[in-house]
Amino acid sequence: MASDSRLTQKPLLETLRGKKQPRPPIWFMRQAGRYLPEYRATRARADDFLSLCYTPKLAKEVTLQPVTRFDLDAAILFSDILVIADALGQSSRFEDGLGPVLEPLEPYDITRLDGQNIKIRLAPVFQTVSDVRASLSAEKTLIGFCGGPWTVATYMVGGKSSNDQAKARLFALRHPESFARLIDILVEASIDYLTAQFEAGADCVQVFESWALNLDEGMFFDEVIEPNRRIVDGVRDRVGSAVLIGFPRGAGANLSSFAERTGYDAIGLDQMVPLEKVDSLVGKSLPVQGNLDPIRLVAGGPQLDRRIEEIISAFEQRPHVFNLGHGIVPETPIAHVEQMIAGVRGH
Amino acid sequence: MASDSRLTQKPLLETLRGKKQPRPPIWFMRQAGRYLPEYRATRARADDFLSLCYTPKLAKEVTLQPVTRFDLDAAILFSDILVIADALGQSSRFEDGLGPVLEPLEPYDITRLDGQNIKIRLAPVFQTVSDVRASLSAEKTLIGFCGGPWTVATYMVGGKSSNDQAKARLFALRHPESFARLIDILVEASIDYLTAQFEAGADCVQVFESWALNLDEGMFFDEVIEPNRRIVDGVRDRVGSAVLIGFPRGAGANLSSFAERTGYDAIGLDQMVPLEKVDSLVGKSLPVQGNLDPIRLVAGGPQLDRRIEEIISAFEQRPHVFNLGHGIVPETPIAHVEQMIAGVRGH
Repeated sequence: MASDSRLTQKPLLETLRGKKQPRPPIWFMRQAGRYLPEYRATRARADDFLSLCYTPKLAKEVTLQPVTRFDLDAAILFSDILVIADALGQSSRFEDGLGPVLEPLEPYDITRLDGQNIKIRLAPVFQTVSDVRASLSAEKTLIGFCGGPWTVATYMVGGKSSNDQAKARLFALRHPESFARLIDILVEASIDYLTAQFEAGADCVQVFESWALNLDEGMFFDEVIEPNRRIVDGVRDRVGSAVLIGFPRGAGANLSSFAERTGYDAIGLDQMVPLEKVDSLVGKSLPVQGNLDPIRLVAGGPQLDRRIEEIISAFEQRPHVFNLGHGIVPETPIAHVEQMIAGVRGH
Repeated sequence: MASDSRLTQKPLLETLRGKKQPRPPIWFMRQAGRYLPEYRATRARADDFLSLCYTPKLAKEVTLQPVTRFDLDAAILFSDILVIADALGQSSRFEDGLGPVLEPLEPYDITRLDGQNIKIRLAPVFQTVSDVRASLSAEKTLIGFCGGPWTVATYMVGGKSSNDQAKARLFALRHPESFARLIDILVEASIDYLTAQFEAGADCVQVFESWALNLDEGMFFDEVIEPNRRIVDGVRDRVGSAVLIGFPRGAGANLSSFAERTGYDAIGLDQMVPLEKVDSLVGKSLPVQGNLDPIRLVAGGPQLDRRIEEIISAFEQRPHVFNLGHGIVPETPIAHVEQMIAGVRGH
């Protein structure tokens, strides 16, 4: 069980720790998701999306489904980045085709957010982590996660997913003190949340800064780099051996500052990061994860095989976890996922 | 008139040609737009958005409004990137709050697009260019424009603005020959369209590749760099002295390949390009334009003044046209535009 699991070598975790493996381990973002019929079947048994996240029996089931089907090297906790907002007292509902919808925060709402109860309010999530770890083979890595503070804040302030995060950017500029307080609350809550995931049995965690785009370098530093650095430091203070992956989607030319200043053990690369620029953007030795365009996985065919080869070849000299550049999309054919996995393993 | 205008020194055009001016000239994207009451008044006199673009009297009026009000260094033709699609036979309607909506192209539709009539179908646009040039002071630069082929294709194939351009990316991967044909048609149409704008009196042109994001470097090369390079070459073949600005919004770390390979005279920078990385991304001498976050212009106050200073100081050693990183948004207070212009001129 947990103690055995910790003594067994996990190729994916070892890669994130900087030890290159004979072949790149593989998992992929949203691997437990709507493209899988078994996911859709379990999802249909929950009242709504958040109930699925908060019911350990069901959340464990969907977490394990892709590992069982594809023999992936890692399971990632099934949950949502907005459970943090929910635990702070701002609930969200999930609408089909629209994603999460929240009542947007006003500056005066921020003092009412309550970060004291993360461990209690999110107890079902930690139960899921521990149940999954108990059922997962010892050589598989269990990945916990949270959303990056900026990304979570864009939903809390904007009320929904947005093309340009304009509401959050404007809030941050118009009400800098309130926004800084919100980011502080999210940083502290994220440290508590990730620490508790490690305590429940997570082997490593990923911070999804999925909307790290549209910011100029000043705002990128204040709202993305600094809060992420504080999370890395805060989690390491409490969990000495913690392994953390940072994923700043859309960071573009700001990626080098992110990699240099946040202190993550590994960096997740979106598909916009050109392979030949990775050495100059994140240094030559830092473990990386990524970065297949999920749309290439939808399209399949020879272009998919070629691109997989390009990615693996580009990272032959550094620790590399194979992954997508963003979450798998619902219309992805399972046969293409199988093609991808065969391509990675056959390299 | 036109001939006098061509003999008079235009600070903005000279900057784009590589001659640094004592202070940065200024214009900004969507300067003729909904934030201006005089624009809204003229817009109300047109049946719909495309009628406004196709009525030279009204289009000229809105083109000149921001130059008259703010004494900017350039007018930019009032039109839309989708007039090209319209001229090719795919019409669009503009819905309030949603932007343009088109009947999405299927692969078999592409052979029906007709690129032979650009000059005839878009004659009102060229009339506008020539009427504006005749009314504009000789020291003001008149900027023509078109959309980048990839950006226009995302609308033609996707049917509307999209968060991730997934429909166009998938189309390009699933139907590479049809998509390449579409890009060829757009490249040729854009060359005709821009050449005719120069002939009508435009001093320079900008190619808006506004959705140059979400692409991996292979697709970025095929769908953005190569088509833009062909437009630059094609226009230069026909208009020897042509000055062209490329604006690949969201190119991120792909910006260096874009600047190096397309051959543009100047590069427009979105706000995500960190100022300290510009030398390494676009070289030390190429004229640049940008890159104030339009949301900073909405927020106003001391942060706006500080950021303007940062931008101007960063480009003190190279030709620089002050601009936004993306179009001005409708809720921008006019007082903040005045503050920006005073900040740039007072530097």
